[in-house]
Amino acid sequence: MNNKIYWMVSLMGMLAFGNGQSQSQVKEDFKPSEVNQPGKQFPQVNSEGRVRVQLEAPDAKYVKLDIGGVKYDLVKNEKGVWAGESAPQDEGFHYYQLNIDGASVPDPGTRYFYGAGRWGSGIEIPAHDQEFYALKDVPHGLVSEVNYHSEITGAWRRCFVYTPPCYNTSGEKRYPVLYLQHGSFEDETGWSAQGKASLILDNLIAEGKAQPMIIVMDNGYAIRPSGHVGMSQAPPAMVFEEVMINEIIPMIDRKFRTIKHRQSRAIAGLSMGANQTMRIIMNNLDTFAYYGGFSGTANYPSNAEIDAENFLNGAFRDGNNVNDQIKVFWLGVGTTEPEVFPQSINAFRRMLDKQGIQYHYYESPNTAHEWLTWRRSLYQFAQLLFH
Amino acid sequence: MNNKIYWMVSLMGMLAFGNGQSQSQVKEDFKPSEVNQPGKQFPQVNSEGRVRVQLEAPDAKYVKLDIGGVKYDLVKNEKGVWAGESAPQDEGFHYYQLNIDGASVPDPGTRYFYGAGRWGSGIEIPAHDQEFYALKDVPHGLVSEVNYHSEITGAWRRCFVYTPPCYNTSGEKRYPVLYLQHGSFEDETGWSAQGKASLILDNLIAEGKAQPMIIVMDNGYAIRPSGHVGMSQAPPAMVFEEVMINEIIPMIDRKFRTIKHRQSRAIAGLSMGANQTMRIIMNNLDTFAYYGGFSGTANYPSNAEIDAENFLNGAFRDGNNVNDQIKVFWLGVGTTEPEVFPQSINAFRRMLDKQGIQYHYYESPNTAHEWLTWRRSLYQFAQLLFH
Repeated sequence: MNNKIYWMVSLMGMLAFGNGQSQSQVKEDFKPSEVNQPGKQFPQVNSEGRVRVQLEAPDAKYVKLDIGGVKYDLVKNEKGVWAGESAPQDEGFHYYQLNIDGASVPDPGTRYFYGAGRWGSGIEIPAHDQEFYALKDVPHGLVSEVNYHSEITGAWRRCFVYTPPCYNTSGEKRYPVLYLQHGSFEDETGWSAQGKASLILDNLIAEGKAQPMIIVMDNGYAIRPSGHVGMSQAPPAMVFEEVMINEIIPMIDRKFRTIKHRQSRAIAGLSMGANQTMRIIMNNLDTFAYYGGFSGTANYPSNAEIDAENFLNGAFRDGNNVNDQIKVFWLGVGTTEPEVFPQSINAFRRMLDKQGIQYHYYESPNTAHEWLTWRRSLYQFAQLLFH
Repeated sequence: MNNKIYWMVSLMGMLAFGNGQSQSQVKEDFKPSEVNQPGKQFPQVNSEGRVRVQLEAPDAKYVKLDIGGVKYDLVKNEKGVWAGESAPQDEGFHYYQLNIDGASVPDPGTRYFYGAGRWGSGIEIPAHDQEFYALKDVPHGLVSEVNYHSEITGAWRRCFVYTPPCYNTSGEKRYPVLYLQHGSFEDETGWSAQGKASLILDNLIAEGKAQPMIIVMDNGYAIRPSGHVGMSQAPPAMVFEEVMINEIIPMIDRKFRTIKHRQSRAIAGLSMGANQTMRIIMNNLDTFAYYGGFSGTANYPSNAEIDAENFLNGAFRDGNNVNDQIKVFWLGVGTTEPEVFPQSINAFRRMLDKQGIQYHYYESPNTAHEWLTWRRSLYQFAQLLFH
């Protein structure tokens, strides 16, 4: 997968779906964003989904709000404080930044999230269906940080592991595991912070809608140390596959009370992670029995017809075998994503149909290539696992 | 405790110990800081402990590096990139920020840490004794994020819990617990991120120098919801004490395999946390048997002689009883801290001596009111616990 093309297309998509700078009749019901730093009043969000920022910069020539691929000029008051707002943004979570006289920096008002290849500001536009990932008075699982040394990459790696509410008080009971991957230019922190994976599962488990499960969120970037390359020019995805099968899963099976059986392992990912995890499951049907692809498939970014004889070394050639082996094959996408995503996913679906392979298909209404699409995808997918 | 005074004194201390702007003969052996974001080349640190930053801001009038209470002017090159370096900084971890035309913002090159009342940039000056908190190939424990609802504050609260390497594979075995608190304008993330508490314990346990233990790192700020004040004008420290005794400890005892006995509970804190935890242990000798005060005591900021008859309601009046009840009473301070810290700690020590109370006293060489002092304090203190 070519990350540069991926990212460019993604950015162009955001630009295409930007709402322009119509500032007329801004509704004055702004409230501090829920992901602000403690005590910070800005940024704020109004009921139209506009983002208002404020920054003290008395000697600046200009300050801009850079969100959704559009830069909005702020206006300075007599006290040297700049303020202004964006056009309405989609429901859900967005990365953004400020630009002060040409310097792109995080907004000092927000908490920070890793995405777009950097730790930077985020904002949450309250969604009409936000209850499914809200922090509620239900039993909560734990998210644990796990550091482990990887022989394959010659480096320390880190993952976050969700254990369900009952885990610590259920004695010797063992649990199934979902391996859940982030997208390009994100990392192992994404699913628990922006993705709200632990809250989504806590709520589903409390309502009896999902089986208690462990979720492992690792980092999809894995490169061999230079001078130590097993295969020449091995692409990062291939090395991550090796790390997943030979290091991550055995380490998790040692450290946690897992059920070590393919029927109790699922793997899913978003965007680049959907692509990676599809390759991993199809190459390791002895290891996993459930697949979730959120806004991505392994033919990305192509919309050409797929030749099932040769695609992924013929992994989909025998449709009956795929149906026998994979208990749930799940695909999802947002309805306002850049066209390259639905087009490549649709080409992939045509191949599945032709091969007679059963799958679930979900569309997230009015969301783009962003986290609300993936929160909803996890919410749908997790309910189908481990029955 | 008056946080405003506390913070002012702390800042004045930093100014008093700032090294001025001697830029002559900068040693050109700079390397990227170890807490940079992935792939970021700046900021850098050289062997003198100078910090060099770099920022693209083509239209800025000025950019400054703001570290250790001193603002250093950066210089712009023909490409619009500003660069410059600080005077040598102390070994260890420091918070800092950039100032662009009057706007104080995080450096987009670093990871972010919560301190000084905000999420902001940090830098690590490699310390000569850094091995004790290095990430090594030894068994590692887990740091788990725990969300819980507090009836006393009417809010969701969060703590991080370290479980030792053997915890997940030791069946029904139960462990002692250290409750470890941050300082003012910091939060529950401080001890595991800046404090390196989990790595310090992993290394100590691997060398057989500390007992395997659970560490609970909670947030020391706890305020009753307005309109629901039990005592009028209850100071935050008093409410935190209630939360600790009535909510945190029972919740930890439910969720983790703890030993529920005073001889298996320690409590310690840094600065404001030292003050808070001293009050908590002296009011709850039935709950804890070990105390650690890092750079703080409950008489802060006073250096006046302490009247043991009345101080903390006479908690130190009966020295023999204190000796019987508290198995380890531990105090530590950095040798270059602002005078108010050693002076108040020394006044407190004179009281202990007068009462015949046994205690351990440690001085961290050449460190100020910063995290290297507290990493070293934890390293010393943890070795004495639960024998």
